[in-house]
Amino acid sequence: MEQRVHNRELILVAYANEGPVTDSHLKIRETQLDLGSVGKDGSSGDVAVQNLWISVDPYLRHLMKESDDGLYLPSFRLNQAIRSILVGKVVASANPAFEVGDIVSGFYQVAEYAIVPGGDLRKIDTSVVKPSDYLGILGMPALTAWAGFTIVGEAKPGDEVFVSAAAGSVGMLVGQLAKIKGCRVVGSAGSDQKVKLLKEFGFDDAFNYKSETDLDAALSRYFPRGIDIYFDNVGGRMLEAVLNHINMKARIPVCGMISQYNQEWKQRFGVRNLLNLVGKCAKMEGFMSGQYHHRMGEFFEEMTGYIKQGKIKYKEDVKVGLDSFLEAFNYMFTGENIGKPVIYLGPPPPK
Amino acid sequence: MEQRVHNRELILVAYANEGPVTDSHLKIRETQLDLGSVGKDGSSGDVAVQNLWISVDPYLRHLMKESDDGLYLPSFRLNQAIRSILVGKVVASANPAFEVGDIVSGFYQVAEYAIVPGGDLRKIDTSVVKPSDYLGILGMPALTAWAGFTIVGEAKPGDEVFVSAAAGSVGMLVGQLAKIKGCRVVGSAGSDQKVKLLKEFGFDDAFNYKSETDLDAALSRYFPRGIDIYFDNVGGRMLEAVLNHINMKARIPVCGMISQYNQEWKQRFGVRNLLNLVGKCAKMEGFMSGQYHHRMGEFFEEMTGYIKQGKIKYKEDVKVGLDSFLEAFNYMFTGENIGKPVIYLGPPPPK
Repeated sequence: MEQRVHNRELILVAYANEGPVTDSHLKIRETQLDLGSVGKDGSSGDVAVQNLWISVDPYLRHLMKESDDGLYLPSFRLNQAIRSILVGKVVASANPAFEVGDIVSGFYQVAEYAIVPGGDLRKIDTSVVKPSDYLGILGMPALTAWAGFTIVGEAKPGDEVFVSAAAGSVGMLVGQLAKIKGCRVVGSAGSDQKVKLLKEFGFDDAFNYKSETDLDAALSRYFPRGIDIYFDNVGGRMLEAVLNHINMKARIPVCGMISQYNQEWKQRFGVRNLLNLVGKCAKMEGFMSGQYHHRMGEFFEEMTGYIKQGKIKYKEDVKVGLDSFLEAFNYMFTGENIGKPVIYLGPPPPK
Repeated sequence: MEQRVHNRELILVAYANEGPVTDSHLKIRETQLDLGSVGKDGSSGDVAVQNLWISVDPYLRHLMKESDDGLYLPSFRLNQAIRSILVGKVVASANPAFEVGDIVSGFYQVAEYAIVPGGDLRKIDTSVVKPSDYLGILGMPALTAWAGFTIVGEAKPGDEVFVSAAAGSVGMLVGQLAKIKGCRVVGSAGSDQKVKLLKEFGFDDAFNYKSETDLDAALSRYFPRGIDIYFDNVGGRMLEAVLNHINMKARIPVCGMISQYNQEWKQRFGVRNLLNLVGKCAKMEGFMSGQYHHRMGEFFEEMTGYIKQGKIKYKEDVKVGLDSFLEAFNYMFTGENIGKPVIYLGPPPPK
């Protein structure tokens, strides 16, 4: 039985190798989708999903380049829908693991509706947390914060911790995990409003890096005892400044370098003081959350515990409708978002 | 009883903050030393040593600067003898642990004779290896190679290993350890003569970086399967080139950055592609051999085993006399030395 819906998908029409992504790269394509076709073409595991929430994350910037220069993620294909992590509601299913009405999450097409192989989806439990939390406090950003801080960062009580882009979707969780684990933590962010937010989140201190004319002096002020863990989200000048303040055996989990994503690598900031890693017997280690899927159970249990105990807060920056994607995306690079950017596609209305 | 000897010490008369160290920084001072005074001034643990061998190593460059910018080693004091690792023969002792005639090693004054607290010395066993081996194949460079490669580098069979400054005192051991441990290893060095030496040492391949106009192309050629371990002795452009060739979960033990030592940190080469650490989930870790003194027993047993089995070779670049120090030292930075630089102070003549 035919069940046509009007669909809107976000399509990459041209690669954005340098500079901001604009509407000359990303366009909305209007289509018709036959939900009744699910499973009829031999793809018996497919599931049709009406999307509720889209996660907007910095790493997507790399998938919009023709050839990658740093994160080694496969580029999106031209003239196809870009992908991200979404949460949606099953509206048709040819997969015995999913029923109409199930709330699911996965990495698939950014669109109002999508037909997705069941293997790319997982059912989520919305009894404790709200659906969009699976894009944030219980999703990829949280796994990134948890794995980067506790495993790569080898966090221990008493550590002096610095987090950049601390009001971002990952940074705000790193800071709160640091407090839970008995560290002292200071965050940097790009506005006074964000600095205020960080203090509300329980950071011991926070500063607006845009107001600091001398990052080195700022770090001397905020870290008189030096830095044991630097959770790096930004790279560039801040990383270089931090390298002059690390303690013996410091750890630098490198999560991302958002200050550098809009440039081709040869135009990026060159870090001149890496020799400090030797003198301080320190390590810098890059990581991606995908490496830690085998520890999802442990992560989920720990984070759910903190959430239930009210030990951890999260802030979303919600925009509504597929048309808001480009604005939400670019705000991350200019720092205009306050909280984890997500897009609500409703109905139903967000809780 | 007075027992005066004529002594010559190497004195730092001015700090060398940038550029090559010259005879305006280092001078020889002629003095008289009374060996009979040992233990007479209340320093009952002192030992008088006639020095036989001086180790010449790149890290000393940092101790000749007024303020350090990377290795965080305490600067030498002006108008005092510089220090290094030496091997000498006890000629007078006020310490029950040492007898006249003992061969000892330690970090102390670079001079023909020195009076040293016994606690700074250890007796060495010259029945299996020659005295100068305690400055090289069984000394600090070997501990550096062993700890950096096996512990920091987490070496395992099948790893693709790249070593820069591979004909240096540490590099040549890293390459041979890599072969013993079942890795494929390629070294870079600064002359065709050194490249030949590396092949004699059993490196799978080696190249003269000065003949390569494009380091990136060279690495593509020598590492078609990418690099799992980069043992970094040089930093700078080579490090940046390597970062474009690392495999997933690569390890970069950073031993030193000799290409950068003669510059103040803000003048050093800025590495622009550190984001690759994220995409490849790779780590860069600085280390110093001093961290691994607690594993000396294990190191000593393993290395002595290889030496007895003839599995490992070593090459020294011997110069004679205290006057040759400056030349031996500067040759490391221009790459003119072939093998580990040591200075023989004899008599007796070198074996």
